[in-house]
Amino acid sequence: MDHKEKALWSGRFASSPAEIMQKYSQSLDVDWHFYREDLQGSKAHGKMLHSIGILDQQELEKILQALEEIEQEVDNGSLQPKISLEDVHMNLESRLIEKLGPLGAKIHTGRSRNDQVATDYRLYMKKSINIIEEKMLFFLETLLKRAEKDVDIIVPGFTHLQHAQPISLGHYWMAYFWKFARDIKRLKNAYHTTDVNPLGAGALAGSTLPLDREFTRKELGFAINSENSLDTVSDRDYLLEFLFAASTFVLHTSGLSEDLILWCTSEFDFIEPPDAFCTGSSMMPNKKNPDALELTRGKTSGVLSSLYDLMINVKGLPLTYNRDLQEDKRPVLHTIYTVNMILDVLTPLIEGITIKEENIAPHLTKGFLLATDVAEYLVTKGIPFRETHEIVGGLVQFCIKHHKNLEDLTLEEWQSYCPTFGRDVYDILSPQLAVDRRKTFGGTARSEVKRQLTAGLELIASFKKL
Amino acid sequence: MDHKEKALWSGRFASSPAEIMQKYSQSLDVDWHFYREDLQGSKAHGKMLHSIGILDQQELEKILQALEEIEQEVDNGSLQPKISLEDVHMNLESRLIEKLGPLGAKIHTGRSRNDQVATDYRLYMKKSINIIEEKMLFFLETLLKRAEKDVDIIVPGFTHLQHAQPISLGHYWMAYFWKFARDIKRLKNAYHTTDVNPLGAGALAGSTLPLDREFTRKELGFAINSENSLDTVSDRDYLLEFLFAASTFVLHTSGLSEDLILWCTSEFDFIEPPDAFCTGSSMMPNKKNPDALELTRGKTSGVLSSLYDLMINVKGLPLTYNRDLQEDKRPVLHTIYTVNMILDVLTPLIEGITIKEENIAPHLTKGFLLATDVAEYLVTKGIPFRETHEIVGGLVQFCIKHHKNLEDLTLEEWQSYCPTFGRDVYDILSPQLAVDRRKTFGGTARSEVKRQLTAGLELIASFKKL
Amino acid sequence: MDHKEKALWSGRFASSPAEIMQKYSQSLDVDWHFYREDLQGSKAHGKMLHSIGILDQQELEKILQALEEIEQEVDNGSLQPKISLEDVHMNLESRLIEKLGPLGAKIHTGRSRNDQVATDYRLYMKKSINIIEEKMLFFLETLLKRAEKDVDIIVPGFTHLQHAQPISLGHYWMAYFWKFARDIKRLKNAYHTTDVNPLGAGALAGSTLPLDREFTRKELGFAINSENSLDTVSDRDYLLEFLFAASTFVLHTSGLSEDLILWCTSEFDFIEPPDAFCTGSSMMPNKKNPDALELTRGKTSGVLSSLYDLMINVKGLPLTYNRDLQEDKRPVLHTIYTVNMILDVLTPLIEGITIKEENIAPHLTKGFLLATDVAEYLVTKGIPFRETHEIVGGLVQFCIKHHKNLEDLTLEEWQSYCPTFGRDVYDILSPQLAVDRRKTFGGTARSEVKRQLTAGLELIASFKKL
Amino acid sequence: MDHKEKALWSGRFASSPAEIMQKYSQSLDVDWHFYREDLQGSKAHGKMLHSIGILDQQELEKILQALEEIEQEVDNGSLQPKISLEDVHMNLESRLIEKLGPLGAKIHTGRSRNDQVATDYRLYMKKSINIIEEKMLFFLETLLKRAEKDVDIIVPGFTHLQHAQPISLGHYWMAYFWKFARDIKRLKNAYHTTDVNPLGAGALAGSTLPLDREFTRKELGFAINSENSLDTVSDRDYLLEFLFAASTFVLHTSGLSEDLILWCTSEFDFIEPPDAFCTGSSMMPNKKNPDALELTRGKTSGVLSSLYDLMINVKGLPLTYNRDLQEDKRPVLHTIYTVNMILDVLTPLIEGITIKEENIAPHLTKGFLLATDVAEYLVTKGIPFRETHEIVGGLVQFCIKHHKNLEDLTLEEWQSYCPTFGRDVYDILSPQLAVDRRKTFGGTARSEVKRQLTAGLELIASFKKL
Repeated sequence: MDHKEKALWSGRFASSPAEIMQKYSQSLDVDWHFYREDLQGSKAHGKMLHSIGILDQQELEKILQALEEIEQEVDNGSLQPKISLEDVHMNLESRLIEKLGPLGAKIHTGRSRNDQVATDYRLYMKKSINIIEEKMLFFLETLLKRAEKDVDIIVPGFTHLQHAQPISLGHYWMAYFWKFARDIKRLKNAYHTTDVNPLGAGALAGSTLPLDREFTRKELGFAINSENSLDTVSDRDYLLEFLFAASTFVLHTSGLSEDLILWCTSEFDFIEPPDAFCTGSSMMPNKKNPDALELTRGKTSGVLSSLYDLMINVKGLPLTYNRDLQEDKRPVLHTIYTVNMILDVLTPLIEGITIKEENIAPHLTKGFLLATDVAEYLVTKGIPFRETHEIVGGLVQFCIKHHKNLEDLTLEEWQSYCPTFGRDVYDILSPQLAVDRRKTFGGTARSEVKRQLTAGLELIASFKKL
Repeated sequence: MDHKEKALWSGRFASSPAEIMQKYSQSLDVDWHFYREDLQGSKAHGKMLHSIGILDQQELEKILQALEEIEQEVDNGSLQPKISLEDVHMNLESRLIEKLGPLGAKIHTGRSRNDQVATDYRLYMKKSINIIEEKMLFFLETLLKRAEKDVDIIVPGFTHLQHAQPISLGHYWMAYFWKFARDIKRLKNAYHTTDVNPLGAGALAGSTLPLDREFTRKELGFAINSENSLDTVSDRDYLLEFLFAASTFVLHTSGLSEDLILWCTSEFDFIEPPDAFCTGSSMMPNKKNPDALELTRGKTSGVLSSLYDLMINVKGLPLTYNRDLQEDKRPVLHTIYTVNMILDVLTPLIEGITIKEENIAPHLTKGFLLATDVAEYLVTKGIPFRETHEIVGGLVQFCIKHHKNLEDLTLEEWQSYCPTFGRDVYDILSPQLAVDRRKTFGGTARSEVKRQLTAGLELIASFKKL
Repeated sequence: MDHKEKALWSGRFASSPAEIMQKYSQSLDVDWHFYREDLQGSKAHGKMLHSIGILDQQELEKILQALEEIEQEVDNGSLQPKISLEDVHMNLESRLIEKLGPLGAKIHTGRSRNDQVATDYRLYMKKSINIIEEKMLFFLETLLKRAEKDVDIIVPGFTHLQHAQPISLGHYWMAYFWKFARDIKRLKNAYHTTDVNPLGAGALAGSTLPLDREFTRKELGFAINSENSLDTVSDRDYLLEFLFAASTFVLHTSGLSEDLILWCTSEFDFIEPPDAFCTGSSMMPNKKNPDALELTRGKTSGVLSSLYDLMINVKGLPLTYNRDLQEDKRPVLHTIYTVNMILDVLTPLIEGITIKEENIAPHLTKGFLLATDVAEYLVTKGIPFRETHEIVGGLVQFCIKHHKNLEDLTLEEWQSYCPTFGRDVYDILSPQLAVDRRKTFGGTARSEVKRQLTAGLELIASFKKL
Repeated sequence: MDHKEKALWSGRFASSPAEIMQKYSQSLDVDWHFYREDLQGSKAHGKMLHSIGILDQQELEKILQALEEIEQEVDNGSLQPKISLEDVHMNLESRLIEKLGPLGAKIHTGRSRNDQVATDYRLYMKKSINIIEEKMLFFLETLLKRAEKDVDIIVPGFTHLQHAQPISLGHYWMAYFWKFARDIKRLKNAYHTTDVNPLGAGALAGSTLPLDREFTRKELGFAINSENSLDTVSDRDYLLEFLFAASTFVLHTSGLSEDLILWCTSEFDFIEPPDAFCTGSSMMPNKKNPDALELTRGKTSGVLSSLYDLMINVKGLPLTYNRDLQEDKRPVLHTIYTVNMILDVLTPLIEGITIKEENIAPHLTKGFLLATDVAEYLVTKGIPFRETHEIVGGLVQFCIKHHKNLEDLTLEEWQSYCPTFGRDVYDILSPQLAVDRRKTFGGTARSEVKRQLTAGLELIASFKKL
C-alpha cells in the first residue's frame, strides 16, 4: 500500500490496519476460558517430550514448575492476557519464555496451534459436559420427586390445547422426565465423541518427530487417540453433537415453560411459581409475571442459533484448518453458559411450584374430559369403537346445547342415544377413576406412574454408573 | 358467518372454506409414503386385540386378509388416496370398512391417530435409516478402496487453503472416512432412539382397555415400549436425531465437494471426475462442469434447514399433540430423499475420479511444502523449535526474493542462515520422504495410512455386526 | 472407470451413473412452474433478435407462432416435460426445434441458460408477489372490518400472558393490522428489487452480439436493466427479500394463531372459530380443535427454514453461477404456496370468528386489570408515580388475601392505604371507562381505535395506488 | 418452599434462588449500551411532562440537570451499573432518585419500561444504522476506485469455478459494488421502519394521562408516531429488518472472501493481500495465510444465526410484551459489532490488494476462455447458435487431445470443423478484444465498465442525499 492509498482510508478509520486486524483476529475474549486446559496440555506434552528424550529431566522440571506458577498467576489475576498476543496459547507460551528463556520455547516442539487448540477445546468440553450432566441428573431427580409428590393430583390432559382426558400430574412431570433423560443420553454420546486425543496431529499431517501420542492420551485422560491427523485438525463434530444435545434440551425446556406459563395465567391458574422466580411490573402493580419461565423459553433461540451458527460456519470448508473455524467458540460458550443457567433456575423453580388443586378441580368437569371413557365403556359392552365415537359425539352436542355436564344426564337421556347404557355408566364418571383405569403400560393410572418412578430411579442410577 | 360476510370473501377465493381447509389440513402428499407401515401397524394391533379377546379368531382373519388385499391394491395402484379422507390412516381404514362393514371399524379400538401415526413414522424411519446406513457403509468401503489405491500419490496438504505440508492422497480420503464413520455412529444412535413402540399410548393417556403393548412391540419388532403415553405422542426427538445425523453427513459431503470442485479447476487440475457426473454449458462449448459436486454442496442447505424446520416447529409447543406437528413430515422425507441421492451419486463419483498425478507433481515444489521438515530437521539437531521456525522463515523469504525453491539452495546459503545445516539437509527435501517421515500415530506416512486401512476395515466389520 | 470398478458399484445401485445423474441434476419438478415465463422470455428475445437483424420477419413470425402453440400444448397437457431434457428451458427449446428445425435453434442466439433462468424466475416472482400482495390487502381489509365490528368489545390486555389492562378488541385486531401492513411494505420492496431485466447478461459477461436490452426490458415490463452481467447471473437477493417478507408475515401469523388458540381453550373460552376450520378427534368425541390455527402456527417453521435454506446455499459461493444455485427454487416455491394457503385460510377464519362476549366479561374483574388506572388516578392527585405504584401494590395484596376485587373495597380500606383516595375512585373502576381513558395517540380508547380505522383505510388506499 | 425443600437444592447450587434469578433476568450486559439513549428519552419525556403541566419549570430543570450529570458520571466511569438494579432503566432512574429524592421518581409518570426500552432501542438502532451506512458508502467508494484502477486488467471469468470467458477485473469489482449497493437500500428501508416513536405506548394500552406524543416525537427526532400501542410494545420488525440487511451484506462479503481466498492460493496466485491482513503459522514458516478473508467468511454464520435467533424467539409469542423478548439484544449487538468490524477490515484490505498481472496472464490461455467468442463469430457468419456450439465443442476436444490452445490451430484445422472459418478468426483470439467486444449494456467491455463507474458515482451521490 503506498502512502497515498494509506492516507485515503486512514482519515476515516480510527486505527491502523494492524490495530484493526489485531482486534479482528484475536480470540482471547473466548479462548482465555481455556487457560487451565492449555496449561494441562502443555504439561502433558512436556512430559511426553521428556519421555522421548527431547527434554531432559531438569528441563522438564523447570517447565512443569513454571506452568504451575503461570496457572497460579492467572488464577490470582496477576497474569492478564494481552490482545497483542492474540490468543490463549501465545499468551501463556510467551509468559513461559519470559520465565525460562529459550527453554520455554521448547515446549512447542512437535506441536502446532492446530492440535493445541483442539486439545484445549476437547478437555474443556469434557469438563463442561460433565458439569451439565450432573446438573441434568439432579434436575431429573427433582422432576421425579415432583412427580412422586403430585401423583394423586388430577389435571386435564390436553391435545390441541383442548381438554382431552384427565391425567395424573405425576404423569405429566414424568413425561418431561423421559424427554430430559434422552437429552442426557445425547450428552453422553457427545462426550464419547469428544473423548479423543488430538495432540500429536501437528498442523495437519502429524510430525516427523517420534511423538508418543499414547503417552499424552493417558496423561490427559482421553479414551482413544484420533486416527487421522487431517480429520483431527478439521473436525468439529464433537462440538456440533454437544450443541445438538443442548438444542433438544432447550426445546424441551421451552415446551415445559410454555405449559407452566399457561398454567400461571388467571384463566388457567393451576400453579403458582415461587416468588423468587417472578417479577412485578414497573407500571402495573397487579402483575406477578412468570419471568423465569418466559426467559427460559426465550433463551431457546439463542441455543438453537448457536448450533446453526457452527453448522453454517463449517459448511463447504476445504480441509483442513481454515481461520473461519476460530469462530467456533462464541456459540459453544454461550450455549454452555445458557444451559447451566437454565438448569440452575428450572430445578429450584420446578421444586418450588405450588399446585392450586382447588382451582384445578372445577376444570375437570369442563370440556367433557371423560367422553373417551364413555366411548370405551360402550366398547366393553361390544359396540364397535367407530360407532361409540358417534354416539358420544351426539351426547356431547346435547350437553353443550343444554348446558349440562355428562354427570348431569339422566339414564333416559343416556339411553336415548344408545340403549346399551346402564346405570353403571355413572360409576365411570369420576376423574380419579378415569385416570386409574388407564393402566396400559405407560398410561396415566397411578399404578403406572409409580412404575415409571421406579424405572426412572433405575435409569438415574444407571446414568450415574456410566 | 352471515350471508353478507360469506359473500365478502367468497367472491375472492376460488373455493369454499371447507375445500380450502381440506387442502390446508390434508397430509396425504407426505404420509401416503407410510401406507405399508400403517397396514403393518393395523395387523399387529388386530392380532393384539384378538389376543385380549376383543376380536374373535374369525374377525381377526377377515381383517388380516382385508389388510393384505389393501396392501396389494395400493401396490398395484388400484387404491388411490382421497384427499377428502385427509390422511393415510383414514384412507386405509375407510377402505377396510368398505370391505368389511362394521367389523372394519373395530380395528381402531383402543387406538388413536396420535399413537397410530407415531407407530407408522417410527417403523418408516427404522426402515429408512437401515437403507441409508447400508449405503453409507458401502460409501465407506469405496473411500477405503480409493485410499488404498491412492496411498502412494502425494498431494499438497492445505491449511488456510495454502500449501502446508505434503500428504498422501490416501491419507486425505481416510480423513473423510473417519468423518463419515462418525455419521454412521450418529445414525445408529438415531436408530436406537427410534426403536421404541408407541402403540398403546392412545390419544395421550393410554387406554382403559387391557391392551397388551408387549404383544405389539414384539409383533412390530421394536426394542422396547415407550414409558409414558404423554411423552409418546408428543416426542419428536427421534426425528431430530435423524435430521442431525443427516446434517453432519451433508456438512461432510459439502466440504469434500468443495475440495474436489477446487481440484477440478484449471488452476489446480488435480483430478477429473467421471464424465457421467459433469455437464457442459449451453453457451460455452469449452466447459466441463463438476455439476454433481456443486449440486451436492448445494443440497446441504436443504438438509440443514430441514433440521431447523422441525426444531423451530416444536419450540414452545404445549404438551401433548398439537396440529403443528403434522408439518413434521415434509422436512424429514426431503432429507431421506436427498441423503439417498447424494450417496447414490457420490459413491460412483469418488470411485470413478481420475487422479492427474502428472499435474499434481509440479505443485509439490511450490509453496515451500517442506519448510516444516527443515525446521524439524534443526530440532533433531538440538535447536529449540521456536528458533528453527525463525531460521526457516528467513530462508523462505530468501527463496521468494531469489525465485528459488529450497532444493535449489547451496550449502553456503543454508549455513548462512544457520551453521548447523549439514549436507544431509538435501536428504529431507523429497516429498515422498517427507510424507513417510510423519509416522506419528494418525500421521500421513504410508505406513500409518495402511494402519488406518486396517482399522477402517475393522470398523466397517463392527458396524455390520451391530 | 474400468470394467471391474464399474461392476463394483453397479451391483449395488439400481441405475447407471447416467440415470442417477439425470435424476440428481434435473430441476423439472420445480422449474416447470416457469413454462409460461420461459415462453414469454423467448418471445421477447426473438422480437429483439429481429429488431437487430438476426432474425428476419418471417423467421420471427414462425417462432412466435410456434411459441404460442407450445404454450397451448403445455396448457392442455399435450406437451409433457421429459426428465432427459433436464429443465424447462431445454424442454421448451427442444420442442421448438422439433417444430421449426434449425430455425428453432436460433432462439438461443446471444442467450445463456444463466440469464434465461434469471428472466423466467424474476417474471414468475413478480407475478407471485402481486398475487400475494392482493390477498394481503384483502386480509388487511378483513382485519379492519373485524376491528370496526369489535371496537366496543372489551378484553383483557396481556403482558407476560398476565392480565395487564383492559383493551378494546378492535385495538387488538388493529395491532395485527399494522404488523401485516409492514409485511406489505417489505413485499413491495422485494418487488422493486425483483423488477430488473437480466436478459442480455449472457452466461456471465454479456454478449459480443449487439443485443438491445432496452428492447427486451420494455417488452417484458421490467423497470430497469441490470447494471452488471456478473452480478446478474449470480444475484439471489430478490429471492431472499421475498423470503424475508414472507418470514415476517408468518411470524406475525404465528403470534396471532397462538393468541387465538389460547382464546379457544376452555380456560379462556373467548372465541369460537368457524366450524369449517376446526376438526374433531378420532378417539375423543368431545374435541373441537382449532386445527387451522395450529397448522398456521406450524407452517411458520417451513417458511423460516426456506429463508435459511437459500441463505446457507449462497454463503461462500464464488462468482458467478454455480450449480448449487439450482437448489434455489424448492424453498421459494414452497413459501409461495404456503403463504397463499395461509392467507386463503386466515382471511375467512378471522372474519368468521364468533366472540363470546358473555364469557369474556367475568375475566375483566379478575387479575386487577384496573390497578394501573388507580395508580394514575393518584398521579392526577399529585402523588409521584413510583409511590402510587407501591400503594396500589399493597391494595392488590390486600385484595388477594381477602378474596376481593378492587370494586369491593370500602372507602376506609382505600384510605387506609392512602388518604388521598376519594369517593371518585369508584368512578374509574369500569373497564369501558378505563379503555376510553387511554386516549393518547395510539392508545386503546375507542376514539383512538376509530382514528386508526381511518388511518388504516387510507393506508390500504395508498397501497393500492402504488 | 419449605425449609426441607430449600435444603435439597441449596446444597448443590452456589447461590440462592434470588441470586440465580438476578443473574438470569438481568440485561445489563447488553442494555447498558443504551445508557445515552435512555437519558435522551428521559429528557424528552420530562420536557413533555412539563409541557402538559405534570412537572413545573423548576422540577424540569432539576431533572434535566441531573440527567446531564448522570450522563457525565457514566461517561467518566464514576457511575457503574449494579446488577441488583437489573437493567439500564432501573440503574439510571435509581441514580436520579438518589440525586433528587421523590422528584426523581416523577420521571416515570405515564411511562412503562415497555415503551421506554422500545424508545432506547430505536434511538440506538438509528444511530447504529447511520454509522454502518456511512462505512458502507465508503466501502462502495473503495470498490469503485478499485474498479477504476483495475479496469484494464483481464482475469478469467468463472462459472462452476471453471474458466468461462475473460472479463475486466474492474467488471468483477463492480459486480460486488451493485450487490453492496442493494444492501445499503435494505439498510435504508430498515432505518425507515425503525424511525417511529414508541414513547407514550405505556405498558401496552397507552396512558390515561394526556401525554403529548407529538412533543416527544419531535424532541427525539422520530419521523412518525407509532399507530397502535399493542403493536408498539410487541413489534420487533425493525430489528429483523436490520438483521436481514446485515445478513445479505455478510453473504456478499462471504462470496467476495471466497473468491479472494482462492485467488491467494499458490494455484491461482492472482493477488496478494496486504501483509497487515495476513498471518503466518506457528509451525510452518512458509505460510502467509489470508486470515482476514477467512475470518470474514467465518463471521457470516454469526450474523445469519443472529437473524435466526430473533426470528425463532418471536415465533408464536402471544401479544404483547413477553420476557422472552429481553433476549432480543445479544444477537443484534453482536451483528452491529461484527458488521462494523468487517467494514473496517475489508475496506483497507480491498484497497491494498496487489494484483499479480504477470501471474494471471498465463491463465487466460488456459481453459479455452474464448470458445464462446469463436461460436459467436460463426453466428455473425450466419450459422445458428446451437450448431456453432457443437462445432466449437469439437474444436475444444481436438485441442485438448493435441495439447493445443485455440490460437495454435492452423486455418486448415479450423476449416476442417467448419468451412466458414476465415483467416479473420485469429483476430478474435485476444482476451482484451474479447472483453471489449462484450459491450451489451452491463457487459464486461471496458466502455461498459466505465459507464458503470459513472452510474455508481451517481448512486453514491443519491444515497448521500437521502
